Amino acid sequence: MSSANRYDVTTWPVGDPAHDIGEVLNSIIADVHSRQSASVDSDGGRPGAVIVIPPGDYRLRTQVVIDLSFLRIEGSGHGFTSSSIRFNVPEEEWTDLHELWPGGSRILVDLSVAAGASEREGAAFVVSRSGSPRISSVEFAGFCIDGLHFTGERSGRHPENSYFNGKTGIYVESANDSFRISEMGFVYLEHALTICNADALSIHDNFVAECGSCIELRGWGQASKITDNLIGAGPDGYSIYAENHGGLLITANNVFPRGASSVHLESVSRSSVTANRLHSFYPGMLVLAGGSSENLVASNHLLRDHEPWTPFLGVDNGLDDLYGLVRVEGSDNSIIGNHVSEVIDSASIRPAGARPVVIRLASGSGNYVATNHVVARGVHASTGGSAFEAQVDALLATSAAETLAVTAVAVDPASTRNTILDSGTDAEVQADRAVNAVRPTPTVD
Amino acid sequence: MSSANRYDVTTWPVGDPAHDIGEVLNSIIADVHSRQSASVDSDGGRPGAVIVIPPGDYRLRTQVVIDLSFLRIEGSGHGFTSSSIRFNVPEEEWTDLHELWPGGSRILVDLSVAAGASEREGAAFVVSRSGSPRISSVEFAGFCIDGLHFTGERSGRHPENSYFNGKTGIYVESANDSFRISEMGFVYLEHALTICNADALSIHDNFVAECGSCIELRGWGQASKITDNLIGAGPDGYSIYAENHGGLLITANNVFPRGASSVHLESVSRSSVTANRLHSFYPGMLVLAGGSSENLVASNHLLRDHEPWTPFLGVDNGLDDLYGLVRVEGSDNSIIGNHVSEVIDSASIRPAGARPVVIRLASGSGNYVATNHVVARGVHASTGGSAFEAQVDALLATSAAETLAVTAVAVDPASTRNTILDSGTDAEVQADRAVNAVRPTPTVD
Amino acid sequence: MSSANRYDVTTWPVGDPAHDIGEVLNSIIADVHSRQSASVDSDGGRPGAVIVIPPGDYRLRTQVVIDLSFLRIEGSGHGFTSSSIRFNVPEEEWTDLHELWPGGSRILVDLSVAAGASEREGAAFVVSRSGSPRISSVEFAGFCIDGLHFTGERSGRHPENSYFNGKTGIYVESANDSFRISEMGFVYLEHALTICNADALSIHDNFVAECGSCIELRGWGQASKITDNLIGAGPDGYSIYAENHGGLLITANNVFPRGASSVHLESVSRSSVTANRLHSFYPGMLVLAGGSSENLVASNHLLRDHEPWTPFLGVDNGLDDLYGLVRVEGSDNSIIGNHVSEVIDSASIRPAGARPVVIRLASGSGNYVATNHVVARGVHASTGGSAFEAQVDALLATSAAETLAVTAVAVDPASTRNTILDSGTDAEVQADRAVNAVRPTPTVD
Repeated sequence: MSSANRYDVTTWPVGDPAHDIGEVLNSIIADVHSRQSASVDSDGGRPGAVIVIPPGDYRLRTQVVIDLSFLRIEGSGHGFTSSSIRFNVPEEEWTDLHELWPGGSRILVDLSVAAGASEREGAAFVVSRSGSPRISSVEFAGFCIDGLHFTGERSGRHPENSYFNGKTGIYVESANDSFRISEMGFVYLEHALTICNADALSIHDNFVAECGSCIELRGWGQASKITDNLIGAGPDGYSIYAENHGGLLITANNVFPRGASSVHLESVSRSSVTANRLHSFYPGMLVLAGGSSENLVASNHLLRDHEPWTPFLGVDNGLDDLYGLVRVEGSDNSIIGNHVSEVIDSASIRPAGARPVVIRLASGSGNYVATNHVVARGVHASTGGSAFEAQVDALLATSAAETLAVTAVAVDPASTRNTILDSGTDAEVQADRAVNAVRPTPTVD
Repeated sequence: MSSANRYDVTTWPVGDPAHDIGEVLNSIIADVHSRQSASVDSDGGRPGAVIVIPPGDYRLRTQVVIDLSFLRIEGSGHGFTSSSIRFNVPEEEWTDLHELWPGGSRILVDLSVAAGASEREGAAFVVSRSGSPRISSVEFAGFCIDGLHFTGERSGRHPENSYFNGKTGIYVESANDSFRISEMGFVYLEHALTICNADALSIHDNFVAECGSCIELRGWGQASKITDNLIGAGPDGYSIYAENHGGLLITANNVFPRGASSVHLESVSRSSVTANRLHSFYPGMLVLAGGSSENLVASNHLLRDHEPWTPFLGVDNGLDDLYGLVRVEGSDNSIIGNHVSEVIDSASIRPAGARPVVIRLASGSGNYVATNHVVARGVHASTGGSAFEAQVDALLATSAAETLAVTAVAVDPASTRNTILDSGTDAEVQADRAVNAVRPTPTVD
Repeated sequence: MSSANRYDVTTWPVGDPAHDIGEVLNSIIADVHSRQSASVDSDGGRPGAVIVIPPGDYRLRTQVVIDLSFLRIEGSGHGFTSSSIRFNVPEEEWTDLHELWPGGSRILVDLSVAAGASEREGAAFVVSRSGSPRISSVEFAGFCIDGLHFTGERSGRHPENSYFNGKTGIYVESANDSFRISEMGFVYLEHALTICNADALSIHDNFVAECGSCIELRGWGQASKITDNLIGAGPDGYSIYAENHGGLLITANNVFPRGASSVHLESVSRSSVTANRLHSFYPGMLVLAGGSSENLVASNHLLRDHEPWTPFLGVDNGLDDLYGLVRVEGSDNSIIGNHVSEVIDSASIRPAGARPVVIRLASGSGNYVATNHVVARGVHASTGGSAFEAQVDALLATSAAETLAVTAVAVDPASTRNTILDSGTDAEVQADRAVNAVRPTPTVD
């Protein structure tokens, strides 16, 4: 292209993008800087640039540091394929496979990460700028960040199933405004996308799967959205995590297992979790902790069932079935109009013989829980063939199961003045009626 | 562009894209294959390619077959314009029209399709690959697939209003993973987009209208999303159809008429239909059939009114007003917080004198129906001028109508142990109270 | 690129895009027209074109007029940065700032707009075409329209904080079909995006902030969607406004202050406002006026709190606290499953000593209000440091506040036959029980 503000990594004269796209990108960013210093006039800005990554394999051996507003890095393919399934295919069958690796505009993260390195140190992309104003409108779009291998030690699991390798896809360190992350693919990273101190952030329409943790909003922030993504973390990590955020909108996401949780909000206020589809294999799939208050959880579909795939049998997040599938440690939240399906192998319930808890109000007060529908089934779990088929079989197996007795809503003594309406029969709501208002779901006499 | 993995159909040396873009695309795909065979190393992948279709008219005389992961085909314009309106303008006025056809990056599907051909045979694009892994991350973005003409025989309708021509836009035959269909336009195809055996599919932000059927997910599948699309099928077809899917998220779509149904789920489980706007001219607009269970239908706006446009007057889907605007044949579903407007010409009710049924639980058990608001009006239908103006007039005509007595919720004897709360007055809920729990919407004494 | 239908403003031989991109764009449009006239054959269309705007600063001194279907104008960066914050930084500190202006593919609107000019006259882009068919599938994507300066007179405010300058970003005058506005940035325009007479419009995933009014759908229209945008208007304007629309879907938006309203629907019917996050500093944040009927307002999070930023202290929209945070002047609407947080400095309540009204049914009949959760807190407002930090602090401050007595639902005598369920305690619902059905939220005895 003709424009001086449009770059293509495959034609840039410095470095070899196949050998180290990090060197190439840093060189391009330096070039944008050098050209910007002369370009400011009375109304004239520093417009940034777009850097194009055509489809291809690009090894990254040097961390990219972005300290420039209005930079867009754009590929032409999110390139996900399941590395997890492939690593669990016997190696002698690999020659029969059409492809072994993710693709598209694919960055192979080949940093040597020291043991104990921080998320920032292990990141392929770091965004960091001090001073004012906050760095704005950096955009990542349409490419794949592939961490290649997991290498951690987890008892009973092959290292490639550990979800640990010290690698981060994108780490945004500085307070930031109006960033966009769209149409990206993230795979086999310990942390896919970690953004600190975000304002008006958009994480939209990405594919973030087979990463230790997927989306983490850290520090504090406001007025952001996580929308319309396909997401699934590893068994020890977060699919969606946010802390100290206000006005966060989490909607229209399809979050699949594993993930220690599907959505974990820590000290988050006045935010929304609506119209998502959430699926988990463990308790604690939606957690409002740390005094998270005045949030809305509505119109979500939550399914918890059991692990169907042999390599992960016996793996869990360490929580027992009394923890709550939805757990609230905070005040004045609204939990309205959700559907919850809980499908458990009765033999696996912990503590043995317990009645699993679906919604647990553990502390706080003034929460409002209305018109939620809990369906609980006991099954005798069995594993299937391939990962995909076993999962679909499990998802569709609704009819053969037996009814499982659960506590639809449990209110701890530490939580008071809550309102619970039409979210469980009288027997299914465990709450002190003297300090909580309860209207059980009507039953046939 | 410089990259060997970026192609432009207008510069490829084989074939003439204006005469047959199918030949050009197949030649490019063969080229990607030939270059891939040498490119695999220890971490090196087969990254695929992007094929660019600039705005323009491209006739397709040869079916495109995609058997390659990570292929992205990308245009610069979804190019919809209403062919339906144009074909119903008198031909002598055509010379006054600014344009006669859809545009953008437009593929004119000019396959000769034999009578009785399968969807696959009549498809402009077929995705098919055997072996492992499943084909992944094929992306279609930003172009228009135009079937040009309808040619079928439907009694009383001009062939161009038949919605039959044997043509399919995209047919995905093989099990697939992480596909993306975005910003596309589909028009005048008998089947726009048919995808079999999908995992983690994203159908997002497309324009699919004036097609016999629009989006059909066949075979089986899981963890996919159909989000933020504008959709409207023909009177005999599906706007959104899925079968044997689990964990499907259908949200934020605006589905307009006609469509025999707006959303039809067949043996679908643990899925969501939330925050959509659905509009239909016939009963049976949202159907959960074949034992569809544990699904959530929430926060949707459903409008049924009557056909306002002369060429389609008298056309319907053959269902009568007792069938149910929302029909459930399955168990443990949740129908929560929807608004339903039913506006019918009283003279057209079938069977004559019947009370139309809004939500019908026809079989299954354990369904939960809460806080739905049904507004029903009887009108004396009349047709307006142009299609657009008549539709807007009808949409805005809320005040002049008279109240219409309906059955808000009808529970058949074959369906038991359902819970129906605040979704109709006592007189509006027709259910055996001995086997279903009913709390009528309160009324003023 | 090779295609005759692909243009780049930086290589077009007519005009200088840095000096006046308006002249360049009009010249390109004329070229598309001149080439189209020869291109129609039996199935052949007038496919339009794509015009690329690479990142850079482009002054616009000539209004662009689009009278051509299937035109896509595409940049590579929405380029938002806060001009509002910058204009409120002392000028002597500007030299320390990394950048002073928005960026990306940035159009500097430098029209001289006469006092009293219409929105159309002050528009950077006008879309206008008479005759048939309606102009279709014009697409704006991925660039920034920057109005540069506000220049109006508002008592007590610096002109740059006035939100008045007579400039409009995009003004669509003619009836239109299947337009798309995506990934755009709009900043410092009196009107960002005004579209008249829209059918099947998509306004998706944009950043529209620091504009007088943001999204305005005027005239009439149908079957459109406003989805997944970040939006925030000035204190005198609209964030989202629509009039005489049917079947409009407003979902998944994050609307932040200021905005005289967050969503204002005027004579809108059978439309949806669902799963949004809305934040405002004033009463009247969600208004259904002019007989707006049969609409669904569900699963939204609404927060009203107080202005935290010094330059706008004392600014409001003139409405008092009895007006209603949600105000309904219309019939048969559904307000279901919303969370409302109202946080007010008790000393600022108007009229003094009044109980603020959250949901007010002012006229009409047959509205259905169910399972809404109102949380009200009185605070002693204080202002913080920077705009960003003060806002986050305010958003997270949930615990220290005292309970504030409010009227959760007020029904005026002019509004009758409404149903109000579980949306406020008996004391919080102010309605004539003889003509409205009320079931108060249960309380502990």
